[in-house]
This record gives sequence, structure tokens and C-alpha cells, in this order.
Amino acid sequence: MQQLRDRIKTDGKVLSAEVLKVDSFLNHQIDPELMMAIGEEYASRFAEEGITKILTIESSGIAPAVMAGLKLGIPVVFARKKKSLTLTDGLYSSNVHSFTKNVTSEISVSKDFIKKEDHLLIIDDFLANGQAVLGLLDIVEQAGASLAGIGIVIEKGFQPGGKLIRERGIRVESLAIIKSLKEGTIEFYEEETVK
Amino acid sequence: MQQLRDRIKTDGKVLSAEVLKVDSFLNHQIDPELMMAIGEEYASRFAEEGITKILTIESSGIAPAVMAGLKLGIPVVFARKKKSLTLTDGLYSSNVHSFTKNVTSEISVSKDFIKKEDHLLIIDDFLANGQAVLGLLDIVEQAGASLAGIGIVIEKGFQPGGKLIRERGIRVESLAIIKSLKEGTIEFYEEETVK
Repeated sequence: MQQLRDRIKTDGKVLSAEVLKVDSFLNHQIDPELMMAIGEEYASRFAEEGITKILTIESSGIAPAVMAGLKLGIPVVFARKKKSLTLTDGLYSSNVHSFTKNVTSEISVSKDFIKKEDHLLIIDDFLANGQAVLGLLDIVEQAGASLAGIGIVIEKGFQPGGKLIRERGIRVESLAIIKSLKEGTIEFYEEETVK
Repeated sequence: MQQLRDRIKTDGKVLSAEVLKVDSFLNHQIDPELMMAIGEEYASRFAEEGITKILTIESSGIAPAVMAGLKLGIPVVFARKKKSLTLTDGLYSSNVHSFTKNVTSEISVSKDFIKKEDHLLIIDDFLANGQAVLGLLDIVEQAGASLAGIGIVIEKGFQPGGKLIRERGIRVESLAIIKSLKEGTIEFYEEETVK
């Protein structure tokens, strides 16, 4: 998605060869118009899939997910992150390890909002090691729901998450895929869908 | 806002005389079309205010805030909640006590995204004891920014937050104000703006 790659080039900050900061438009400050463009892009890529619901994870997945939900005319459910859950009745839950923060969180979704009849689109802001997406996939599986695919805003193509998930035969649509952040320069893959 | 009150009547669950659950359309599952209607309502109520930015708090404030930001053509910044912050350089932060969870969290916003020239609209999903809004007001003050007002989706009019904040002379626009949840029945105040 050219508009997104341009924005990353202009406003993204390379903190190291692994870390790209995009908190001026995606993670902390949010550009609603860009989120709308992203939502439209997902809606168009997944238009024919008969998706019934979008599943995302708090907090930075919510804005792009809600815009996609608006365009597709379907609800959005966000998984909640907690260090530990006291009440797990009525919840699907899974553990997600963050390599950057070195913390394992429990994520959970109420059983009221994902049913086995659902055909889901997972949306998240970043795909790096893939742990958050794997946690969401675990929840989809627990619910016995089916999956149309995964929409990612920014994939770090030099980290293993994308490969790991595509190897399972899952369709992953990343709107920008970073090839490298070396020497402070942001390089993208040409193809938006890495096969 | 009639559409919102109707939705609360239909899908809200009264768990006790104090607790209203609206996680089927606002807090956990999100109805994007309702969020858009809410965003339009805020945009119209605050249209003449010259607002430069919306400030909200993760996670449930994000969806209505992003829709309002879309309609007003301005960015949204969400405060992050953390139990404790290791890095506080470059952050405005404040403590927020949750009476329901009996936990005090630190909320923070990067100094990069609120400037003293900003004229802010605060948006949040719920107003009950007002602690989250007071924390956001503290951050606005630290930044030296000015405030146009506060947009709340659901105010619990029988709890003290609304009164506390209006007494400071701050404009609070709550789209639905609950008068009572007694005996499992949801009663609203007629007037949307309680003076």
C-alpha cells in the first residue's frame, strides 16, 4: 500500500536495526484518515471472503480493525491483555510472549463474541515474531471458528512471524513489509504479499 | 443521543445497581457503525471549537475517538496505562485509581504529541467516578494545552464524576446519562447535558 509506505518513510523512526517507531500515526498518536484508508484496503482485499467478524488485540489493533469493520459492515472484537486473569470462566484465553518486553501476557476473548459459525479476519498493527497472532489463532481454534486470513499493517519481514504463519497455509496480507532497517534506512519488499 | 440510549436498552446488561455491561457493542465487541454515529455526534457538538487534537485512553476510548477524529479531520492520541513505568523521560504521566478494580495505574502520553498550542477534546467511553478523566486533565495541564471539553459515551449520572468535572467549569457532553440501574432497569436522564 503505497500511501502507508510513504508515511512510514516520512514519519517512521528507525531506533535500531530491529526497531521501527511509528507512534506518530499508528501506535500512540493515530491518524484517523490513514486508518480509514487501511480499513478500505483490507475491506477490498477480503471483500469476497464472507467474513462475519474481525478479531484484533488491544490497543493498537483497534483503530485499523474498526475502520475495516465499518467498511465490511461487521463487528470487531478485541482481545484483552492481562498479566494474569482471576476470572477465566466464559473466556477463551492464550499466552502471548513479547520478545521486546520479555513479558508473557494472557490474552482473552469472551465466549459470547466468537462462535463456531464465525468466519474471522484477524487484524493487528505489527507482525514481527508472530506471537500475538499465534495467540489469536489459538483463540480462533478454541472457538472452533474458521479463518479468512490475517491483515497486518506493518510486517517486519526480517523477523520470523510472517514465514511461520504463512507456512501454516494462512493468508497474510501485510500492507507494508519491511525488508531491512539497517544503517537507519527503511527498505521495503516490493511485493506486498510475500508468498 | 437516542440511537445510543436505544442500543443500551436493547443490549446493555445490568449486573447490579452500579454495574452496566455494554461489552457487546462498546467495551469488548465494538459496533463500528455505532462508533461512527458517535464520532459524528461529537464532531457536530464541538464543530465550532477549533479543536486541534483528541486525547483518549486505551482501550475502549479509541474507537469513538478515532471516529470523531476522522470527522473533525484531526489526530487522536491515546494515553497508555501501565502498572509502573520504567522510562518516564519524555512522558507526561498521572495516576488513575480504578474503584471497580481497586488498582492504581499510571497513565502516560508522550510529550511529542501534546503541545501547549493544542486545543484538546478528551473522549472516553465511561464516566463514573471520573478518575480516568481527572488523570487526562492532569496531563493536559502538564502540557500547558487548552481544553475544549469532554465527550463521554456513557455517563453514570448516579456516580460523582460528572458533577466533579462540571463543577470545574468544564464542558462535558455525555451521549447517554444513566439515572439509575436499580431493580435491573436502565433509566436515563432526559437531558443529555446535565448542568
